Amino acid sequence: MNNFTFHIPTDIRFGKDQIQCLPEELKKYGKNVLLVYGGGSIKRSGLYDKIRDLLKDFEVSELSGIEPNPKLTSVEKGAAICKEKDIQVILAVGGGSTIDASKHIAAAACYDGEPWELVKDRSLVKKALPVAVVLTICATGSEMNSGAVISNEKTHEKLEINHPLLYPKLSVCDPTYLYTLPPEQTAAGAVDILSHVMEQYFQSNDEAYITDVLSEAVMKTVVKYARKAMDEPQNYEARSNLMWASTVGLNHLLTVGKGGAWSVHPIEHVISAYYDITHGVGLAILTPAWMEYVLSDKTVLRFARFAREVFGVKETDDAKAAELGIEKVREFNRSLGMPSTLTEVGILQDKFDEMAAEAVRTSGISLRAYVKLEISDVKKILMNCR
Amino acid sequence: MNNFTFHIPTDIRFGKDQIQCLPEELKKYGKNVLLVYGGGSIKRSGLYDKIRDLLKDFEVSELSGIEPNPKLTSVEKGAAICKEKDIQVILAVGGGSTIDASKHIAAAACYDGEPWELVKDRSLVKKALPVAVVLTICATGSEMNSGAVISNEKTHEKLEINHPLLYPKLSVCDPTYLYTLPPEQTAAGAVDILSHVMEQYFQSNDEAYITDVLSEAVMKTVVKYARKAMDEPQNYEARSNLMWASTVGLNHLLTVGKGGAWSVHPIEHVISAYYDITHGVGLAILTPAWMEYVLSDKTVLRFARFAREVFGVKETDDAKAAELGIEKVREFNRSLGMPSTLTEVGILQDKFDEMAAEAVRTSGISLRAYVKLEISDVKKILMNCR
Repeated sequence: MNNFTFHIPTDIRFGKDQIQCLPEELKKYGKNVLLVYGGGSIKRSGLYDKIRDLLKDFEVSELSGIEPNPKLTSVEKGAAICKEKDIQVILAVGGGSTIDASKHIAAAACYDGEPWELVKDRSLVKKALPVAVVLTICATGSEMNSGAVISNEKTHEKLEINHPLLYPKLSVCDPTYLYTLPPEQTAAGAVDILSHVMEQYFQSNDEAYITDVLSEAVMKTVVKYARKAMDEPQNYEARSNLMWASTVGLNHLLTVGKGGAWSVHPIEHVISAYYDITHGVGLAILTPAWMEYVLSDKTVLRFARFAREVFGVKETDDAKAAELGIEKVREFNRSLGMPSTLTEVGILQDKFDEMAAEAVRTSGISLRAYVKLEISDVKKILMNCR
Repeated sequence: MNNFTFHIPTDIRFGKDQIQCLPEELKKYGKNVLLVYGGGSIKRSGLYDKIRDLLKDFEVSELSGIEPNPKLTSVEKGAAICKEKDIQVILAVGGGSTIDASKHIAAAACYDGEPWELVKDRSLVKKALPVAVVLTICATGSEMNSGAVISNEKTHEKLEINHPLLYPKLSVCDPTYLYTLPPEQTAAGAVDILSHVMEQYFQSNDEAYITDVLSEAVMKTVVKYARKAMDEPQNYEARSNLMWASTVGLNHLLTVGKGGAWSVHPIEHVISAYYDITHGVGLAILTPAWMEYVLSDKTVLRFARFAREVFGVKETDDAKAAELGIEKVREFNRSLGMPSTLTEVGILQDKFDEMAAEAVRTSGISLRAYVKLEISDVKKILMNCR
């Protein structure tokens, strides 16, 4: 088991009506709040009104319109508001995109240079405003980690900024806020959660047994409840289990003692930086293709274990079990109504060379991934996704 | 899933040689350190010298001789030293007993009345010194939680004090420090870890599926590595998995969304308050007897699930699977060389009435346990342990 540090300062308030804590918690930081959110869904659901009412004694500025795959321009706008209005705490209401944008804004607000510089060199992050979260989409785990993924429209880069100062101070996770999520967002979120755990699970350190079994537990949870949450949007059991799975899935617990670079996310990040598709959709298309590509004598035991422990595959032959595991992932994605090819989402092969090169350039995929992949490998995986 | 808060401020440094961080971390709090430890084992192992060397620029006072089932008198001594020497941070080097005593000292040092009052009424805890930990026995999870169990020799009470101010600020968990643990302590620790998870797992809320599967993951880890760590004391894989299992087993992760009072621990606490036996030994004797006593039509499904998921029992009939699960726990305890009756450890039935009454009086066992137990029930369980 590799050495590790585990230290998560985020205060999670999970469950029905936990939002009532907001006034008391936010006032610890000050009166000037920047409320960050996406489109109109929180207005339609009534959550916006509830929050404005809870914050009636605060000075609230707003930044709305945070897009999926949040853009650098939104961060720049947010940082400008923070400086102008002397913002003391940022309240992100939404899913991973809104939270990620808010984290980057929090750091950019305390930095004199261009916000993108912080993404390129995290050592420039010296200070950040506190971020509080009200979670309305469960997927990225951003509510309890220190990472944020931001897209630079000009350079086609989609990169992560990660710094201990970016942990949210507080995250309100009320599963009833997921009740109004459209089924396709529930599905994309579930695929994202599963992918996060798989990225951490498919690594070469077998000695961190406890981390592997904890990962299997979270993956089983996603498989058990994802379709149910789509069919019964107000099923509290399904929503709450998925919501906590998203948090635990990427709060560092499932990587301790292991480590190594991720494989599918870096490729997907390039695709959605070029084509702006939903992150979970990109992952659903890429994951089985990646699995098939890296399955070999060296990896077969972990693939077989994955199939048996996560999907209950009974096959005793390891090679067959491993293949069945990949089929189970395809089945799972299909059951959620996910597309299975890039062609279906309008992505043709004309930029595959460029994207494969970018995926390798912007990640550790060729150096520290479970199976190291060069540009030509990534290109082949993309070709297999047509 | 029940509402919950999850907020653990402890900074865990896990792995080989993480102890090097001590000077830098401790100096955040000040120069005056109270070093708390148990018997001579850390002197024999060389750990004591290493720590004194790391702390050569600090003013170090010492409190040694913390006993298993730590006593109020030790806490009183420690609090007096803190006040006299103006201690700024407590460094606990040891297992649960040393850490628990240190936590209570940390609160008592900031309190004007008698330390035992804080145990009786935790609302009196308003402030506590920071506690740092170097873990040398893995069992209680005290390194990452806010509880401490203290024995009052005069009143025969063994009670918990639990307060958010008592989370250790820092815990150094180096599995190589377990290499010198005698096998019987390794065994008692493993039983304690398993029991902690069982206490949280055997609760009536079935909707917190994710918490249950995470619990099964930790229990499987204990079952897999406990005997191995006894047979191969320097097996890093076994030691590291058990060490992290002890931390995760009682850092709140496995109780979120569930809850309810514990069953076996309160009975064991009374036994070891009266007879000062090793906590893990008491648990090993009591656990199967408790399981048999509470197994019924109402609980059979959870017992069967436990048997299948934790011990791989293949039996499809639930009642039979449940029985096999209890047998597996007995087998596990036997494989660790644990006694199976109270008689074997010199405890006869003369105080059973008194102890049963005390277990009910000092816990929620009759009000909020998985299966509510009255004094007569506890007495019967004790009788079944003869």
